[in-house]
Amino acid sequence: MSHLGTLRRGAWAALLRQLLRPPGAVCTRAVGCHSQVEEAVLTSQLKPHQEKPNFIIKVPKGTRDLNPQQMVVREKILDEIISCFKRHGAKGLDTPAFELTEMLTEKYEDNFGLMYDLKDQGGELLSLRYDLTVPFARYLAMNKLKKMKRYQVGKVWRRESPAIVQGRYREFCQCDFDIAGEFDPMIPDAECLKIMCEILTGLQLGDFLIKVNDRRVVDGMFAVCGVPKSKFRTICSSVDKLDKMSWEEVRHEMVVRKGLAPEVADRIGEYAQCHGGISLVEEMSKDPNLSQSQLALQGLADLKLLFEYLTLFGIAEKISFDFSLARGLDYYTGVIYEAVLLQTPGQAGAEALSVGSVAAGGRYDGLVAQFDPKGHSVPCVGLSIGVERIFFLVEQKMKASGKKVRTTETQVFVATPQKNFLRERLKLIAELWDAGIKAEMLYKNNPKLLAQLHYCEKTDIPLMVIIGEQEQKEGVIKLRSVASREEVTINRESLVAEIQKRLSES
Amino acid sequence: MSHLGTLRRGAWAALLRQLLRPPGAVCTRAVGCHSQVEEAVLTSQLKPHQEKPNFIIKVPKGTRDLNPQQMVVREKILDEIISCFKRHGAKGLDTPAFELTEMLTEKYEDNFGLMYDLKDQGGELLSLRYDLTVPFARYLAMNKLKKMKRYQVGKVWRRESPAIVQGRYREFCQCDFDIAGEFDPMIPDAECLKIMCEILTGLQLGDFLIKVNDRRVVDGMFAVCGVPKSKFRTICSSVDKLDKMSWEEVRHEMVVRKGLAPEVADRIGEYAQCHGGISLVEEMSKDPNLSQSQLALQGLADLKLLFEYLTLFGIAEKISFDFSLARGLDYYTGVIYEAVLLQTPGQAGAEALSVGSVAAGGRYDGLVAQFDPKGHSVPCVGLSIGVERIFFLVEQKMKASGKKVRTTETQVFVATPQKNFLRERLKLIAELWDAGIKAEMLYKNNPKLLAQLHYCEKTDIPLMVIIGEQEQKEGVIKLRSVASREEVTINRESLVAEIQKRLSES
Repeated sequence: MSHLGTLRRGAWAALLRQLLRPPGAVCTRAVGCHSQVEEAVLTSQLKPHQEKPNFIIKVPKGTRDLNPQQMVVREKILDEIISCFKRHGAKGLDTPAFELTEMLTEKYEDNFGLMYDLKDQGGELLSLRYDLTVPFARYLAMNKLKKMKRYQVGKVWRRESPAIVQGRYREFCQCDFDIAGEFDPMIPDAECLKIMCEILTGLQLGDFLIKVNDRRVVDGMFAVCGVPKSKFRTICSSVDKLDKMSWEEVRHEMVVRKGLAPEVADRIGEYAQCHGGISLVEEMSKDPNLSQSQLALQGLADLKLLFEYLTLFGIAEKISFDFSLARGLDYYTGVIYEAVLLQTPGQAGAEALSVGSVAAGGRYDGLVAQFDPKGHSVPCVGLSIGVERIFFLVEQKMKASGKKVRTTETQVFVATPQKNFLRERLKLIAELWDAGIKAEMLYKNNPKLLAQLHYCEKTDIPLMVIIGEQEQKEGVIKLRSVASREEVTINRESLVAEIQKRLSES
Repeated sequence: MSHLGTLRRGAWAALLRQLLRPPGAVCTRAVGCHSQVEEAVLTSQLKPHQEKPNFIIKVPKGTRDLNPQQMVVREKILDEIISCFKRHGAKGLDTPAFELTEMLTEKYEDNFGLMYDLKDQGGELLSLRYDLTVPFARYLAMNKLKKMKRYQVGKVWRRESPAIVQGRYREFCQCDFDIAGEFDPMIPDAECLKIMCEILTGLQLGDFLIKVNDRRVVDGMFAVCGVPKSKFRTICSSVDKLDKMSWEEVRHEMVVRKGLAPEVADRIGEYAQCHGGISLVEEMSKDPNLSQSQLALQGLADLKLLFEYLTLFGIAEKISFDFSLARGLDYYTGVIYEAVLLQTPGQAGAEALSVGSVAAGGRYDGLVAQFDPKGHSVPCVGLSIGVERIFFLVEQKMKASGKKVRTTETQVFVATPQKNFLRERLKLIAELWDAGIKAEMLYKNNPKLLAQLHYCEKTDIPLMVIIGEQEQKEGVIKLRSVASREEVTINRESLVAEIQKRLSES
C-alpha cells in the first residue's frame, strides 16, 4: 500500500471539503456548484487518520457520465460527422490524451481556460490536451509529414474559470478535420466550409450561418485603427467576444482593462460591427483606410476567391463575412470561420436556446514550424465540431419528439414458460449468438413467463423464442412477434434460418 | 499570459532534461528510453528567462500516436468487440477520463502501476482513471442502479514503474463488458466467458485458453496453507506472477520480500502448479486440506456449475481451471478468469511472441457497496479486453500477409486533363458529396493528369471521373475504372446515378 498511502492524504482534504458543503448541495454537473468552501485548500489543517466518513459520490466538476440513452444520441452524432469526414477522403489519427507540457505552452491565448496539468510524479511534465489541433501539428512535425488530410475524434480538457463555466463542460469531445500541405489558395479552405455545411445540414439542427473573416484582415484593421502591435492578440480576443457581449462592454474591456486609447477603440467599433456577403468584401477592398494595409488586402483577396469557390459548392448563402469574428486562439494566420445556429430545432413555440458556436476553425500556417527544430512550416487549415453543444440540441429534439430510444439492439429473446428449462435456454441462446443473432435471456433458473414478456416489451425486442415441455417433446420451437403477439411453431433445426429470414425482411 | 507563465518554468525543466540526453536518444515509444538524467528533477537549478533552445519532439513516455494504418487496424478490432457486446444486449456508457482521487483510492492492489494524479490547481483532487471497472461501480452507486448490462470502450492510464514497463503502454484502450445485478449463480459469469471466446475466435488470433479460478478458492487455499490473513492480498499478487516468473522466483518473493514462512510457501506451491478441467475441480472438492475451508468449497461448487454451463455453450474445451490464476486487482470476490493465446497467428515458422493475457475479468460483488453511503451492494461480473496486445498481433499478421491497407474510403476521384478546369471540378465534386459519394480531387488549380492518375493508384481509389474541354462541349463525362483502365463516356446528368449503380454492384 506504499504509494497509495500518498494519495490518501489528498483524498481526505477532498472528503472534508465535500462534508463542509451545505446540505442538499450534492451535484454531479458543472454548472452552479462551486462554493468558496469547495475552492479552499484545507489539506494543511487535516490529520490523516480520522475515521472515514460517508462521502458524497459525484463526478469531477465540469464532467459528466453519458448514460445509455445519451450514448445513443452521441453515437448518432459521431456517425454523421465521421461519415462526412470519410466522404472527403480523410484518414484517421489518434494521439495521447496528454502531451509534454512544453508542447502545449504558448499555443493558446491567455483568456481561454487553463490547461489541466498532471502532478509531477517524477519523470516528464505533462498536461492534458487542450484541443486536437496542436497535437496534429506536433504529429506532422515529429513525423516530418509535408501533407495529410486527417480527422480525429476525441476528448479534450479545459479548466474553464468558474466565471465562464456556465453551461460549458471541462471535458468535452471534439471532431476535427484538417488539411495540411502546400496547395493552391482557398481550395482546401473552401472544402472545410463545405464540410461544416454538410454536417450541420445532415444533423438537421435547423438553419445556420457560418461567419467568415481572415486574421490578416483583423490584424490589418487593427493596424490602420492604431492598435499597438503588442496588443493585437489581446484586443483580438476582446473583439471575439462580440457574439456574447455588447459593443459597450467590449469597448470597456479594451479601454479600461487593456489600456487601449478610446479613439482607437471607436475606430475598431466601426469595422467590428460590419457583416455581409461578397459585396462587403469588395466594398472593404476599396475602403481608403483598410486598403492602406497590404495584409488586409491579401486577406480580402483570398476571401473573394473563397466566396467564388463557395458559390460553386452551392453554399454561398450560408456564409457571412463578419468583421467581429476574431477567434481567440493564437495560432490562426489566415481565414477563420465559426458556425452558429440561427434557431433551435425544437417544436414551434419552444423557448429559444442560445448554444453559441457549434463548429469553428481556420488556417494556421505557422503552427507546425513551432515544433520543427529547423522551423520548416507546413500550411494547414481545418475545422472542429463541438459535440457537446450539438448533443444538447439533438437530445432536446429527441425528448420533444417523445419517441422512445432503444439503448440495445437485441433482436431475439429466449424464453420458457416452464421450470427447469435453463439448460435448454442456454444451448439455444448460444446457437443464436454463434449465428451472429443479437439475443438475450433472463439470468434466472426459473423466470416467470410474464417477467420475460415484460422484459421484451420494455426493451423493444421484436422477436421471442419460446421453448417448453411440449415444444421439446415435439422437436419444435415457438417464434413470437412481440408487437403483434402472433406465434408460429417451427422446427427446432430451422430456427436460426427462420430468424435470419425474418430479420432480413424487417 | 498570466497563468501560462506558471507553466513555463516547469516546461523549461523538461526542455533542459531533453537536452541533457545523449545524442541519438530521440525516442517516441515507451520502451527503453528512461535514463537517470530524465528522471532527475532539475527545476530548482533553472532560471526561467534563458533563450529557448530547440527541443526534441516526442510523445510522453509510455504513450504513442496511432497513424492512419494503425487506426484501420484498431477500428477493425473495436468493431469486432463492440458488435459482440451488442450481440449480448449490452448498453453503452461513457465516464470522464478522470475521477475524484478519493473515488479511486484503495481499489487497486499495491504492486500495480501508479495512478496518474492531476496537479492541484485549486478545486478538486483528481486522478486519471486506472480501469473502467471502478468508474462503472461508481456510476451504479451514484445513480442507485440495481442492475445493468453495459459495455464501455475507452482509454485508461497507468504509470507502470520502469522495471515492468517493457512492451507495455501507460496509456491504453480497454473494452469492458459487465453484468450488474442479483441473479442466479454463474449464469452471467458463464456469459462473460462465452463473450471472451466469441471475440477471440472472431479476431482470428489463433488458439487460446481461458484460465479460470475463484477468489474464494485462492483465499481458502491460503488459509489452509497457513498464510496470515493480513498477507492474503500481497501473496495473491505474487502467485499471480506465475505466468511470467518461475515458481522459484515467486517463492523467493513471497519468502524473502514478503516474509512468508518457507513451509507455507511450499504448501502454496503444491496447489499453485495444478491446472486442469472439470475433473480437477471435482478432485479438489475432495482434497482433505482444501475442503476444510468452507470458502474454498463454495468456490469449487460454483466452478462446477460454471463448467456445466460452459459445456452447454460449447466452449468447455477452451477453459482450464488453474490454481495459479489469482488476479492482482483487489476488488474480485468470486470467479476470476484470464485468456491467453497459445500461439501466434503469424505464418508458420514465425518467431513465437509472448503477449501475455489478452482478456481478463471476474466477479466483484463488493465494489459498488464501497461507493454507496449505506453500503448497499450490487453483485457484478465482467470482463476487459486489452486492445493493445491484440492490436500488436493483428498488426503483425497484416504486415506478414503483405496486403495493402487502405486508410481512406474514397470511391471516386475527380480529374481533368486540361488547364483551367478547377471550377468545373469543384462543381462536380460538390454534386458527388451531396449525393453521399466519397470523393476527392487534387487541391491544385492545374494539376497534371499523370499526378492525378498516380494519386488514384497510390490510394486505391476505384473510379475516376474525367472532365475536359471535349466533354464539357458535348455535355458528357468520362468514367474510368482505375484498375482495368476501361473508360466509358456518359451523360453529365446521369453521372451520379451511374456511379451509385457501379458502387452498389461492387
